[in-house]
This record gives sequence, structure tokens and C-alpha cells, in this order.
Amino acid sequence: MVNVQFATSVHIILALALMSKETKRLPNSDSLAESIQTNPVVVRRLLSLLNKAGLIKSTRGKNGGVQLKKSPPEITLKDVYLALEIEECVKPHNKPPHKECPVSCSIHGIMSSIAEGYQKTNLKYLESLKLSDLLKKIKA
Amino acid sequence: MVNVQFATSVHIILALALMSKETKRLPNSDSLAESIQTNPVVVRRLLSLLNKAGLIKSTRGKNGGVQLKKSPPEITLKDVYLALEIEECVKPHNKPPHKECPVSCSIHGIMSSIAEGYQKTNLKYLESLKLSDLLKKIKA
Repeated sequence: MVNVQFATSVHIILALALMSKETKRLPNSDSLAESIQTNPVVVRRLLSLLNKAGLIKSTRGKNGGVQLKKSPPEITLKDVYLALEIEECVKPHNKPPHKECPVSCSIHGIMSSIAEGYQKTNLKYLESLKLSDLLKKIKA
Repeated sequence: MVNVQFATSVHIILALALMSKETKRLPNSDSLAESIQTNPVVVRRLLSLLNKAGLIKSTRGKNGGVQLKKSPPEITLKDVYLALEIEECVKPHNKPPHKECPVSCSIHGIMSSIAEGYQKTNLKYLESLKLSDLLKKIKA
């Protein structure tokens, strides 16, 4: 799950952006799951995170469904990445320092600084990818 | 395990670099595990991956143990990262295309290109971090 949640979320927001142009009926977690060929439970969990981050909104009722809360040029993949609260693989380990070992006493500070630089680099890249630019790459 | 294997491996190579200067006795997975305060099995698994990538070597016998195979200025965190074969969170999902959905038919290509750029950005950052520079940050 963790390893494809980013791709699945990008799929969801691309589908929402495209569907809003093409149809008057809003999609729901079932129609999105059908498009992605995944389980609606997976889609609902991701929609909940995207909603919490202010990227989408859901409305209930006969004409209800899911839609983007911002326009495609206003959404970047940094927003999606942060919404998912993904656990980085580059981060300090959680072991207590072993007082006789100088590496052990310094590793938390060293790894924190590396992790900070790593995340900054990643987010800068993801911020350069706008939903509006990705939409242009979809073959009609 | 996945989430701290990078930090644990950085700890291992820093400890190997420092121990090779300070003692004549080579460390083994037990002494490394004690320094990191983790299980020797975890250390052995990581040593096996670091060994496979040509970063360390192990010798058996009375004076045996683990040592770096390259000098600290020759090892970067890119080498460590690649050695661990970490699964990226930014990568295409594995669902088959749903032929009626244009997003579904284009998502694999879009996500592959994003994942490639993401990895390139990450590796460039990690390559800038040399083991020799990290060693200077260890408080004696």
C-alpha cells in the first residue's frame, strides 16, 4: 500500500481534473476505483487524506461526489506528497545513544541534517510539477 | 525495518571508518550491533547488502571482522542508498490500464517520468555527501 499510494493519489487528482471538464456528474470513490482498477477502500483512504490537506472536497446527495478544491495550476505534486504523510526512508534511526561510542552519540544530529536536506531537495522537485502540466501529457 | 535501514547503514559505515583509525581489532556484527543498540541480525543483513555493493569486506578467523573496502572520500551516501535497494514511494502503481479512461492509459508513462526525475534529484543530493565529510561531524 505505502509504495503505490503516491501514484494512486496522482491518478485520482488527474482523473478529478479531467472528469470535471468532460462530464457534469461528479465521480465518487467507486468510479475512481474502477478507473484505477483498485479497491474503493484504498481510494476512500486516500481521498480522506487529500481532503484533510484541502486539495479536494466531497459533497453528498444525488448530485454529490468528489471534486478538486483548487484549480490544476494551483496544485503541485508537493501538495499531494505532503498530504499523504509519507514516511521517508532517509531519516534518523530511533536507537538510544551508546555512550561509549562517538558515532552513536553523533548519529542523530548527522542524520537529522541529512534528512532535512533530502526532504528539501525532494519537495523542491515535486513542487515544480504542476497538475496543469501533467494534464497536458494525457493522451485523449 | 525499511524505514531505518538507511540510517543504520550510515551508522555502520561511520563506525567502520572510525574504528579502523582507532583500534587494531576489526569490529564484527556483534560489536557494531552493540554500538547501534540494535539486533546483530539486522546488522548482518545490512552488511550483506553493503558487501554485495562492494563497500565493505569481511574476513574470518581470529583477527577477522568487517572493514571498509574503499577510503572514506571514495564513499558517498549515494553508494549506501543504492546498496540497500530501497523501494521508492514515488513510482508508478502496478494496476493495468482501464481502456475507457484516458488517465488510466497515460498514468504509467507520466509516473515513470516523475519517478525518474525524483530518483535523479535524490541521488544527486546523496552523492554530494561524502563519508569523509560526515566523519568530521563526529564529536570525539
